[in-house]
Amino acid sequence: HHRDSVIFGGRGMSLEETINTSNDYYRIQNKAVIYKKPTPIQIVKVDYPQRSQAVIREAYFRNASTTDYNGVYQGYYLDFEAKETTNKASFPLKNFHQHQVDHFQNCLAQQGICFTIMRFSSLERYFVTPASLLINYWSQQSQGRKSIPLKTIIETGYEVKAGFRPALDYLEAVDQLIAKTNLKNLGENHGSK
Amino acid sequence: HHRDSVIFGGRGMSLEETINTSNDYYRIQNKAVIYKKPTPIQIVKVDYPQRSQAVIREAYFRNASTTDYNGVYQGYYLDFEAKETTNKASFPLKNFHQHQVDHFQNCLAQQGICFTIMRFSSLERYFVTPASLLINYWSQQSQGRKSIPLKTIIETGYEVKAGFRPALDYLEAVDQLIAKTNLKNLGENHGSK
Ligand SMILES: [Mg+2]
Ligand SMILES: [Mg+2]
Repeated sequence: HHRDSVIFGGRGMSLEETINTSNDYYRIQNKAVIYKKPTPIQIVKVDYPQRSQAVIREAYFRNASTTDYNGVYQGYYLDFEAKETTNKASFPLKNFHQHQVDHFQNCLAQQGICFTIMRFSSLERYFVTPASLLINYWSQQSQGRKSIPLKTIIETGYEVKAGFRPALDYLEAVDQLIAKTNLKNLGENHGSK
Repeated sequence: HHRDSVIFGGRGMSLEETINTSNDYYRIQNKAVIYKKPTPIQIVKVDYPQRSQAVIREAYFRNASTTDYNGVYQGYYLDFEAKETTNKASFPLKNFHQHQVDHFQNCLAQQGICFTIMRFSSLERYFVTPASLLINYWSQQSQGRKSIPLKTIIETGYEVKAGFRPALDYLEAVDQLIAKTNLKNLGENHGSK
Protein backbone atom coordinates (compact mmCIF):
# COMPACT_ATOMS: atom_id res chain seq x y z
CA HIS A 1 0.00 0.00 0.00
CA HIS A 2 1.17 3.51 -0.79
CA ARG A 3 0.05 4.65 2.66
CA ASP A 4 2.54 2.30 4.30
CA SER A 5 5.47 3.78 2.49
CA VAL A 6 4.54 7.25 3.68
CA ILE A 7 3.66 6.48 7.25
CA PHE A 8 5.82 3.67 8.42
CA GLY A 9 9.09 4.68 9.88
CA GLY A 10 11.57 2.23 8.53
CA ARG A 11 10.84 2.82 4.87
CA GLY A 12 12.37 5.84 3.23
CA MET A 13 14.09 7.00 6.42
CA SER A 14 17.72 6.24 7.13
CA LEU A 15 18.38 4.04 10.13
CA GLU A 16 19.72 7.06 11.98
CA GLU A 17 16.60 9.14 11.23
CA THR A 18 14.41 6.23 12.28
CA ILE A 19 16.15 5.99 15.63
CA ASN A 20 16.39 9.74 16.18
CA THR A 21 12.65 10.27 15.59
CA SER A 22 11.93 7.33 17.89
CA ASN A 23 14.10 8.94 20.56
CA ASP A 24 12.24 12.26 20.10
CA TYR A 25 8.99 10.38 20.58
CA TYR A 26 10.26 8.60 23.69
CA ARG A 27 11.35 11.92 25.20
CA ILE A 28 8.06 13.65 24.47
CA GLN A 29 6.20 10.69 26.00
CA ASN A 30 8.53 10.74 29.04
CA LYS A 31 9.45 7.16 28.27
CA ALA A 32 13.22 7.53 28.03
CA VAL A 33 15.93 10.16 27.52
CA ILE A 34 18.22 8.95 24.76
CA TYR A 35 20.33 11.01 22.37
CA LYS A 36 22.72 10.42 19.54
CA LYS A 37 26.11 11.80 20.47
CA PRO A 38 27.44 14.56 18.24
CA THR A 39 30.32 13.69 15.92
CA PRO A 40 33.58 14.62 17.65
CA ILE A 41 35.31 17.46 15.82
CA GLN A 42 38.60 19.21 16.40
CA ILE A 43 38.08 22.88 15.70
CA VAL A 44 41.12 24.80 14.44
CA LYS A 45 39.80 28.09 13.06
CA VAL A 46 36.61 30.04 13.73
CA ASP A 47 35.53 33.31 12.11
CA TYR A 48 33.34 35.72 14.06
CA PRO A 49 31.73 37.92 11.43
CA GLN A 50 30.07 41.13 12.62
CA ARG A 51 26.34 40.81 13.17
CA SER A 52 26.18 37.15 12.29
CA GLN A 53 26.92 33.84 13.89
CA ALA A 54 30.35 32.27 14.26
CA VAL A 55 31.55 30.16 11.32
CA ILE A 56 33.93 27.25 11.73
CA ARG A 57 36.43 27.56 8.84
CA GLU A 58 38.83 24.74 9.64
CA ALA A 59 38.05 21.62 11.58
CA TYR A 60 38.80 17.91 11.45
CA PHE A 61 36.91 14.76 12.26
CA ARG A 62 38.25 13.06 15.36
CA ASN A 63 38.03 9.37 16.13
CA ALA A 64 35.05 8.50 18.27
CA SER A 65 35.86 6.60 21.45
CA THR A 66 32.33 5.46 22.23
CA THR A 67 29.16 4.29 20.54
CA ASP A 68 26.56 6.52 18.88
CA TYR A 69 23.73 6.48 21.40
CA ASN A 70 23.27 6.52 25.14
CA GLY A 71 20.76 7.60 27.72
CA VAL A 72 18.57 6.64 30.64
CA TYR A 73 15.45 4.47 30.77
CA GLN A 74 13.69 3.60 34.03
CA GLY A 75 16.93 3.88 35.97
CA TYR A 76 18.94 1.88 33.48
CA TYR A 77 21.88 3.24 31.54
CA LEU A 78 21.39 2.31 27.87
CA ASP A 79 24.22 2.31 25.37
CA PHE A 80 23.99 1.18 21.78
CA GLU A 81 25.27 1.34 18.25
CA ALA A 82 23.03 1.21 15.18
CA LYS A 83 24.25 -0.38 11.94
CA GLU A 84 22.77 -1.67 8.75
CA THR A 85 23.70 -4.11 6.00
CA THR A 86 22.34 -5.02 2.59
CA ASN A 87 23.42 -8.63 3.20
CA LYS A 88 20.60 -11.11 3.57
CA ALA A 89 22.11 -13.98 5.52
CA SER A 90 24.56 -12.44 7.96
CA PHE A 91 25.75 -9.19 9.51
CA PRO A 92 29.38 -8.26 8.64
CA LEU A 93 31.67 -7.52 11.59
CA LYS A 94 33.52 -4.93 9.50
CA ASN A 95 30.58 -2.57 10.16
CA PHE A 96 31.85 -2.29 13.74
CA HIS A 97 35.06 -0.90 15.19
CA GLN A 98 37.40 -1.91 17.98
CA HIS A 99 36.62 1.19 20.06
CA GLN A 100 32.91 0.35 20.01
CA VAL A 101 33.57 -3.19 21.23
CA ASP A 102 35.90 -1.86 23.95
CA HIS A 103 33.33 0.70 25.02
CA PHE A 104 30.63 -1.98 25.27
CA GLN A 105 32.89 -4.08 27.47
CA ASN A 106 33.59 -1.12 29.74
CA CYS A 107 29.90 -0.24 30.02
CA LEU A 108 28.88 -3.86 30.65
CA ALA A 109 31.39 -3.95 33.51
CA GLN A 110 29.45 -1.00 35.00
CA GLN A 111 26.14 -2.86 34.57
CA GLY A 112 25.00 -0.78 31.63
CA ILE A 113 22.43 -2.24 29.21
CA CYS A 114 24.42 -2.52 25.97
CA PHE A 115 23.17 -3.61 22.59
CA THR A 116 23.22 -3.07 18.86
CA ILE A 117 20.33 -2.25 16.59
CA MET A 118 20.98 -4.14 13.36
CA ARG A 119 19.01 -3.41 10.24
CA PHE A 120 18.93 -5.85 7.34
CA SER A 121 17.84 -3.27 4.79
CA SER A 122 17.17 -5.74 1.94
CA LEU A 123 14.88 -7.71 4.24
CA GLU A 124 13.53 -4.64 6.09
CA ARG A 125 14.10 -6.42 9.40
CA TYR A 126 15.48 -4.89 12.61
CA PHE A 127 17.01 -6.64 15.59
CA VAL A 128 18.10 -5.55 19.02
CA THR A 129 20.99 -7.85 19.89
CA PRO A 130 22.88 -7.94 23.19
CA ALA A 131 26.39 -6.45 22.98
CA SER A 132 27.73 -9.79 24.24
CA LEU A 133 26.88 -11.37 20.88
CA LEU A 134 29.00 -8.83 19.01
CA ILE A 135 31.81 -9.14 21.56
CA ASN A 136 31.87 -12.94 21.18
CA TYR A 137 32.03 -12.89 17.39
CA TRP A 138 34.45 -9.97 17.39
CA SER A 139 36.97 -11.71 19.64
CA GLN A 140 36.90 -14.85 17.49
CA GLN A 141 37.07 -13.24 14.07
CA SER A 142 40.76 -13.85 13.45
CA GLN A 143 40.16 -17.62 13.77
CA GLY A 144 36.51 -17.72 12.85
CA ARG A 145 33.93 -16.12 10.67
CA LYS A 146 33.77 -12.43 9.82
CA SER A 147 30.02 -12.04 10.15
CA ILE A 148 27.18 -12.98 12.48
CA PRO A 149 24.65 -15.34 10.86
CA LEU A 150 21.09 -14.00 10.68
CA LYS A 151 20.00 -17.30 12.21
CA THR A 152 22.08 -16.57 15.32
CA ILE A 153 20.78 -13.01 15.47
CA ILE A 154 17.19 -14.29 15.36
CA GLU A 155 17.94 -16.76 18.17
CA THR A 156 19.94 -14.39 20.39
CA GLY A 157 18.33 -11.01 19.67
CA TYR A 158 14.88 -9.49 19.65
CA GLU A 159 13.18 -8.55 16.40
CA VAL A 160 11.56 -5.10 16.25
CA LYS A 161 8.96 -4.18 13.64
CA ALA A 162 9.05 -0.72 12.07
CA GLY A 163 5.90 1.26 12.86
CA PHE A 164 4.41 4.72 12.96
CA ARG A 165 4.96 6.22 16.41
CA PRO A 166 7.60 5.50 17.36
CA ALA A 167 9.14 4.67 13.99
CA LEU A 168 11.03 1.84 15.68
CA ASP A 169 9.84 0.79 19.12
CA TYR A 170 13.14 -0.71 20.15
CA LEU A 171 12.47 -0.18 23.88
CA GLU A 172 10.01 -3.06 23.70
CA ALA A 173 12.97 -5.27 22.81
CA VAL A 174 15.13 -3.57 25.44
CA ASP A 175 12.54 -4.52 28.08
CA GLN A 176 13.13 -8.16 27.17
CA LEU A 177 16.88 -7.68 27.20
CA ILE A 178 16.69 -6.07 30.66
CA ALA A 179 14.45 -8.85 31.99
CA LYS A 180 16.94 -11.45 30.80
CA THR A 181 19.89 -9.47 32.22
CA ASN A 182 18.18 -9.20 35.60
CA LEU A 183 17.49 -12.94 35.68
CA LYS A 184 21.21 -13.51 35.24
CA ASN A 185 22.25 -10.91 37.82
CA LEU A 186 19.79 -11.59 40.63
CA GLY A 187 20.89 -9.84 43.78
CA GLU A 188 22.91 -7.31 41.87
CA ASN A 189 22.43 -3.57 41.78
CA HIS A 190 19.13 -3.55 39.90
CA GLY A 191 16.38 -5.48 41.61
CA SER A 192 13.32 -6.72 39.78
CA LYS A 193 10.56 -4.16 39.69
CA HIS B 1 54.46 24.52 48.09
CA HIS B 2 55.52 24.67 44.48
CA ARG B 3 55.00 20.93 44.19
CA ASP B 4 51.31 21.30 44.93
CA SER B 5 50.76 23.67 42.09
CA VAL B 6 52.28 21.20 39.66
CA ILE B 7 50.72 18.02 40.93
CA PHE B 8 47.31 18.85 42.24
CA GLY B 9 44.57 18.69 39.71
CA GLY B 10 42.46 21.69 40.41
CA ARG B 11 45.24 24.25 40.20
CA GLY B 12 46.32 25.37 36.77
CA MET B 13 43.90 23.07 34.98
CA SER B 14 40.57 24.30 33.70
CA LEU B 15 37.51 22.75 35.29
CA GLU B 16 36.87 20.82 32.09
CA GLU B 17 40.42 19.44 32.00
CA THR B 18 40.16 18.53 35.68
CA ILE B 19 36.99 16.53 35.07
CA ASN B 20 38.17 14.99 31.80
CA THR B 21 41.39 13.68 33.34
CA SER B 22 39.39 12.37 36.30
CA ASN B 23 37.09 10.55 33.86
CA ASP B 24 40.13 9.09 32.06
CA TYR B 25 41.39 7.84 35.41
CA TYR B 26 38.00 6.36 36.34
CA ARG B 27 37.86 4.52 33.01
CA ILE B 28 41.39 3.13 33.31
CA GLN B 29 40.60 1.98 36.86
CA ASN B 30 37.31 0.42 35.67
CA LYS B 31 35.49 2.61 38.15
CA ALA B 32 33.07 4.35 35.79
CA VAL B 33 32.56 5.13 32.10
CA ILE B 34 31.87 8.85 31.78
CA TYR B 35 32.56 11.14 28.82
CA LYS B 36 32.10 14.74 27.92
CA LYS B 37 29.75 15.00 24.97
CA PRO B 38 31.22 16.59 21.85
CA THR B 39 30.02 20.07 20.93
CA PRO B 40 27.14 19.75 18.46
CA ILE B 41 28.13 21.15 15.08
CA GLN B 42 26.21 21.51 11.85
CA ILE B 43 28.57 20.71 9.01
CA VAL B 44 27.90 22.48 5.72
CA LYS B 45 31.01 22.02 3.60
CA VAL B 46 33.80 19.43 3.71
CA ASP B 47 36.87 19.27 1.47
CA TYR B 48 38.44 15.91 0.72
CA PRO B 49 41.99 16.72 -0.37
CA GLN B 50 43.94 13.97 -2.11
CA ARG B 51 46.21 11.96 0.16
CA SER B 52 45.18 13.81 3.31
CA GLN B 53 42.33 13.87 5.74
CA ALA B 54 38.99 15.55 5.23
CA VAL B 55 38.81 19.23 6.22
CA ILE B 56 35.59 20.85 7.40
CA ARG B 57 35.49 24.26 5.70
CA GLU B 58 32.10 25.55 6.79
CA ALA B 59 30.24 24.56 9.92
CA TYR B 60 28.15 26.18 12.64
CA PHE B 61 27.71 25.68 16.35
CA ARG B 62 24.33 24.20 17.19
CA ASN B 63 22.48 24.64 20.44
CA ALA B 64 23.08 21.80 22.84
CA SER B 65 19.96 20.10 24.12
CA THR B 66 21.57 18.26 27.01
CA THR B 67 24.26 18.65 29.64
CA ASP B 68 27.98 18.20 29.12
CA TYR B 69 28.65 14.85 30.77
CA ASN B 70 26.98 11.51 31.11
CA GLY B 71 27.86 7.88 31.65
CA VAL B 72 27.43 4.78 33.75
CA TYR B 73 28.65 4.00 37.27
CA GLN B 74 27.77 0.77 39.06
CA GLY B 75 24.51 0.44 37.17
CA TYR B 76 23.54 4.07 37.67
CA TYR B 77 23.07 6.56 34.87
CA LEU B 78 25.00 9.72 35.78
CA ASP B 79 24.31 13.06 34.15
CA PHE B 80 25.93 16.33 35.09
CA GLU B 81 26.98 19.81 34.15
CA ALA B 82 30.21 21.45 35.34
CA LYS B 83 30.37 25.20 35.91
CA GLU B 84 32.61 27.66 37.68
CA THR B 85 32.36 31.14 39.13
CA THR B 86 34.79 33.70 40.48
CA ASN B 87 32.09 34.81 42.99
CA LYS B 88 32.85 34.05 46.60
CA ALA B 89 29.46 33.98 48.27
CA SER B 90 27.03 32.53 45.75
CA PHE B 91 26.76 30.71 42.42
CA PRO B 92 25.02 32.74 39.67
CA LEU B 93 22.12 31.02 37.91
CA LYS B 94 23.05 32.75 34.66
CA ASN B 95 25.83 30.19 34.28
CA PHE B 96 23.11 27.64 33.48
CA HIS B 97 20.64 27.39 30.63
CA GLN B 98 17.00 26.39 30.34
CA HIS B 99 17.79 23.32 28.21
CA GLN B 100 20.11 22.02 30.93
CA VAL B 101 17.42 22.38 33.59
CA ASP B 102 14.85 20.70 31.31
CA HIS B 103 17.27 17.87 30.58
CA PHE B 104 17.89 17.32 34.30
CA GLN B 105 14.16 17.13 34.94
CA ASN B 106 13.73 14.59 32.13
CA CYS B 107 16.61 12.45 33.40
CA LEU B 108 15.42 12.62 37.01
CA ALA B 109 12.01 11.36 35.84
CA GLN B 110 13.91 8.32 34.46
CA GLN B 111 15.70 7.82 37.79
CA GLY B 112 19.02 9.12 36.56
CA ILE B 113 21.53 10.50 39.07
CA CYS B 114 21.74 14.18 38.12
CA PHE B 115 23.98 16.82 39.60
CA THR B 116 26.20 19.79 38.99
CA ILE B 117 29.87 20.17 39.76
CA MET B 118 30.32 23.76 40.89
CA ARG B 119 33.74 25.30 41.23
CA PHE B 120 34.30 28.47 43.22
CA SER B 121 37.57 29.32 41.54
CA SER B 122 38.53 32.19 43.88
CA LEU B 123 38.08 29.89 46.86
CA GLU B 124 39.40 26.78 45.05
CA ARG B 125 36.41 24.83 46.38
CA TYR B 126 34.36 22.25 44.48
CA PHE B 127 30.87 20.97 45.22
CA VAL B 128 28.71 18.20 43.85
CA THR B 129 25.15 19.46 44.24
CA PRO B 130 21.97 17.55 43.42
CA ALA B 131 20.22 18.80 40.28
CA SER B 132 17.10 19.39 42.39
CA LEU B 133 18.85 22.35 44.06
CA LEU B 134 19.45 24.04 40.71
CA ILE B 135 15.91 23.23 39.56
CA ASN B 136 14.40 24.78 42.70
CA TYR B 137 16.37 28.02 42.44
CA TRP B 138 15.91 28.16 38.68
CA SER B 139 12.12 27.91 38.86
CA GLN B 140 11.96 30.71 41.46
CA GLN B 141 14.42 33.12 39.89
CA SER B 142 11.81 35.46 38.38
CA GLN B 143 10.43 36.14 41.88
CA GLY B 144 13.50 35.32 43.89
CA ARG B 145 17.24 35.52 43.89
CA LYS B 146 19.43 34.99 40.84
CA SER B 147 22.11 32.95 42.55
CA ILE B 148 22.47 30.04 44.95
CA PRO B 149 24.14 31.03 48.25
CA LEU B 150 27.38 29.21 49.04
CA LYS B 151 25.90 28.48 52.47
CA THR B 152 23.03 26.56 50.84
CA ILE B 153 25.44 24.73 48.54
CA ILE B 154 27.53 23.67 51.55
CA GLU B 155 24.40 22.40 53.32
CA THR B 156 22.79 20.67 50.34
CA GLY B 157 25.79 19.50 48.35
CA TYR B 158 28.97 17.52 48.92
CA GLU B 159 32.34 19.20 48.92
CA VAL B 160 35.10 17.53 46.88
CA LYS B 161 38.78 18.28 47.41
CA ALA B 162 41.08 18.54 44.41
CA GLY B 163 43.77 15.88 44.46
CA PHE B 164 46.31 14.03 42.39
CA ARG B 165 44.73 10.89 40.93
CA PRO B 166 41.99 11.50 40.16
CA ALA B 167 42.34 15.26 39.90
CA LEU B 168 38.84 15.58 41.32
CA ASP B 169 37.37 12.49 42.97
CA TYR B 170 33.77 13.55 42.48
CA LEU B 171 32.49 9.95 42.53
CA GLU B 172 33.08 9.94 46.27
CA ALA B 173 30.47 12.70 46.52
CA VAL B 174 28.25 10.89 44.02
CA ASP B 175 28.27 7.83 46.30
CA GLN B 176 26.73 10.01 49.03
CA LEU B 177 24.22 11.48 46.60
CA ILE B 178 23.20 7.97 45.46
CA ALA B 179 22.88 6.76 49.05
CA LYS B 180 20.57 9.67 49.85
CA THR B 181 18.57 9.15 46.63
CA ASN B 182 18.07 5.46 47.44
CA LEU B 183 16.88 6.28 50.94
CA LYS B 184 14.20 8.46 49.39
CA ASN B 185 13.22 5.91 46.73
CA LEU B 186 13.16 2.69 48.73
CA GLY B 187 11.43 -0.03 46.77
CA GLU B 188 12.13 1.68 43.48
CA ASN B 189 14.16 0.37 40.60
CA HIS B 190 17.53 0.50 42.34
CA GLY B 191 17.74 -1.51 45.51
CA SER B 192 20.35 -0.89 48.15
CA LYS B 193 23.53 -2.80 47.47
MG1 LIG C 1 26.98 4.41 13.95
MG1 LIG D 1 29.42 23.18 30.43
